[in-house]
Amino acid sequence: MNESMKARTVIFGTQEDRIQRRLDALDPDLGRYIRDFAYDTVYDRPALDLKTKELIACALLVSLGSPPELRTHIRGALNAGAAEAEVRDALMLCVPYLGFPRAVAGFEVLRQHLEPREKPAPGQGTGLQDSEDQ
Amino acid sequence: MNESMKARTVIFGTQEDRIQRRLDALDPDLGRYIRDFAYDTVYDRPALDLKTKELIACALLVSLGSPPELRTHIRGALNAGAAEAEVRDALMLCVPYLGFPRAVAGFEVLRQHLEPREKPAPGQGTGLQDSEDQ
Amino acid sequence: MNESMKARTVIFGTQEDRIQRRLDALDPDLGRYIRDFAYDTVYDRPALDLKTKELIACALLVSLGSPPELRTHIRGALNAGAAEAEVRDALMLCVPYLGFPRAVAGFEVLRQHLEPREKPAPGQGTGLQDSEDQ
Amino acid sequence: MNESMKARTVIFGTQEDRIQRRLDALDPDLGRYIRDFAYDTVYDRPALDLKTKELIACALLVSLGSPPELRTHIRGALNAGAAEAEVRDALMLCVPYLGFPRAVAGFEVLRQHLEPREKPAPGQGTGLQDSEDQ
Amino acid sequence: MNESMKARTVIFGTQEDRIQRRLDALDPDLGRYIRDFAYDTVYDRPALDLKTKELIACALLVSLGSPPELRTHIRGALNAGAAEAEVRDALMLCVPYLGFPRAVAGFEVLRQHLEPREKPAPGQGTGLQDSEDQ
Amino acid sequence: MNESMKARTVIFGTQEDRIQRRLDALDPDLGRYIRDFAYDTVYDRPALDLKTKELIACALLVSLGSPPELRTHIRGALNAGAAEAEVRDALMLCVPYLGFPRAVAGFEVLRQHLEPREKPAPGQGTGLQDSEDQ
Repeated sequence: MNESMKARTVIFGTQEDRIQRRLDALDPDLGRYIRDFAYDTVYDRPALDLKTKELIACALLVSLGSPPELRTHIRGALNAGAAEAEVRDALMLCVPYLGFPRAVAGFEVLRQHLEPREKPAPGQGTGLQDSEDQ
Repeated sequence: MNESMKARTVIFGTQEDRIQRRLDALDPDLGRYIRDFAYDTVYDRPALDLKTKELIACALLVSLGSPPELRTHIRGALNAGAAEAEVRDALMLCVPYLGFPRAVAGFEVLRQHLEPREKPAPGQGTGLQDSEDQ
Repeated sequence: MNESMKARTVIFGTQEDRIQRRLDALDPDLGRYIRDFAYDTVYDRPALDLKTKELIACALLVSLGSPPELRTHIRGALNAGAAEAEVRDALMLCVPYLGFPRAVAGFEVLRQHLEPREKPAPGQGTGLQDSEDQ
Repeated sequence: MNESMKARTVIFGTQEDRIQRRLDALDPDLGRYIRDFAYDTVYDRPALDLKTKELIACALLVSLGSPPELRTHIRGALNAGAAEAEVRDALMLCVPYLGFPRAVAGFEVLRQHLEPREKPAPGQGTGLQDSEDQ
Repeated sequence: MNESMKARTVIFGTQEDRIQRRLDALDPDLGRYIRDFAYDTVYDRPALDLKTKELIACALLVSLGSPPELRTHIRGALNAGAAEAEVRDALMLCVPYLGFPRAVAGFEVLRQHLEPREKPAPGQGTGLQDSEDQ
Repeated sequence: MNESMKARTVIFGTQEDRIQRRLDALDPDLGRYIRDFAYDTVYDRPALDLKTKELIACALLVSLGSPPELRTHIRGALNAGAAEAEVRDALMLCVPYLGFPRAVAGFEVLRQHLEPREKPAPGQGTGLQDSEDQ
């Protein structure tokens, strides 16, 4: 990971254009606030490295009931250099603070990210990538 | 920080006995579950260092509305080697995920931890330590 | 909008009978409580106009994680005279109070309401209307 | 119900092995914590009978937005001897504490449990059992 | 407990008039909705006994972060015949579903209810009763 | 109300400098984000009038458990031209969506705002203004 890159470029990786287009399609101002405020202002603060930020983001998204953004930030944590075991321990730390149902939902999202090939029927494999944030 | 120490010994620091006694007084089984399951089982998992765990814990406690445990874990993050700027960035990362009111409440707890001397009237200074987790 | 109409008649519009039947099928008492207490007692209070009430309802449903009721009340706000831009600003006001994930989920529901024709395959178009609150 | 049986054996019934395998597949430690701490430590406490515990669990899962675990514990409450009317009253008690949207989502899960035969197309009946906790 | 008594008469006990006056002072309609809808409609449903309802209520109030109502319903559970150990097990069941911070806050409210004499300075003892729901 | 004024000037009224100083003291960046993003970007969007925005804000703050910001925005709603009855109906609309405990906590904050003179002992009256957002 290049530390001088913007956080959103590392987090979103090859999905960056697609995710920004999806947010802009929901509402252009919403897409702009997320890019300019959430990422380029708050996320680009210098004290914590990006891996730590993404592990915190994963835990916060588990607290919100594991919305689709959790998958984006599990991938973001891995893109920022986290080992799978580190993501698992971040999700597990949610157990004593939030209880098991929230944590189980988080691990279910991790499973879907790690084993995407189990689900599509033959011939649909690559298509899954296009909708993985849905 | 000695990595071979138990997480709760580092997190609680000089408050360890007092906190455990307080939890045991609420309910002996509750105190035991927190010690044996939350700390000695979940917290002592090896993949993440304690500083990262405590920054995640701070964010999760902000998501819960900043209960008294937030102060314990802000102190725990600092005890585990986090700089104040790192704690601030962990709290700030809650803004895009949880909104401003939850984050403001978290920063208010940080302020109380950093500036305890502002509050007591003359002569009451040391007494504050005894109730700081209340 | 006829101000003397019951709130639920304006909010539900052509879906009124279907929604009441669905709630009654879940539990007849539940359906009755929603009709008699939530709508005919609380909603019919006189101080606020129905458009304002529905914009508040949309924000509250975003706070709950955007359950299916959000779609009903986005439609209700529009039925009560709100412009699309007013619904968008009500959802956007959730950003500073609740953070982006909740708000994004709300805008996703708005998108589904505004662009229902994108989803069904040819020949399934009208069927979508029957299950739009699911 | 045999009072000397473990809570999880009664709650999960014929689904016990499948549910434990699913949790272990998410993460072996997570599966073990749920079995050893949540069930064999907390659930097996002696003061309340299992039916009461399961009605409380149903209400708590409604408070969390009715995750898939709600279906497991609605079935658990019935397995522990609760009448359908008792489950309905436990869900209804959520109305004054949590509002209607959470309660409606809970009753929707109850409906899916009570009427599973409505959904599968002819010939798919038994297959539903395998994924009912999804 | 006389089963033909209204739920609110048993739950509130000697505090009934005071609590109703406090709610009416906040807003007369709010006080009326709580009495007529929450208590005399939902709570007076027949399937569950009042003790079970109050244990469920305690758990739901823990899920909401233990607002002042938790103390009222801990007292209500005891008034309805629950043993202290049953209240403790209902609060403990919140641990696997909601995590430790919510449960600790609930046990703190229980402690305040059980040990009210510890707090007032000499001569203030009976005054505490008047504000115990604050 | 002058429509060309900034939202925060109307909402905060005579408290504007004090509130901004308090937020800056918590963290200068936090204070800046709230002023520049929450208020001067999101709040200053043009579709809704400020009174409607503040009624929505009050409802959202009730959903968060009525943190201190609720008092600021109850005052903001009144400053923006809302009648007390309109604030009451916005809080009451929280009952069917969020249940009674959240709504009661909101009405309690309204009561504190409307009756500040009941609390201070003789001679302390004006001092209350300085800490009313605490």
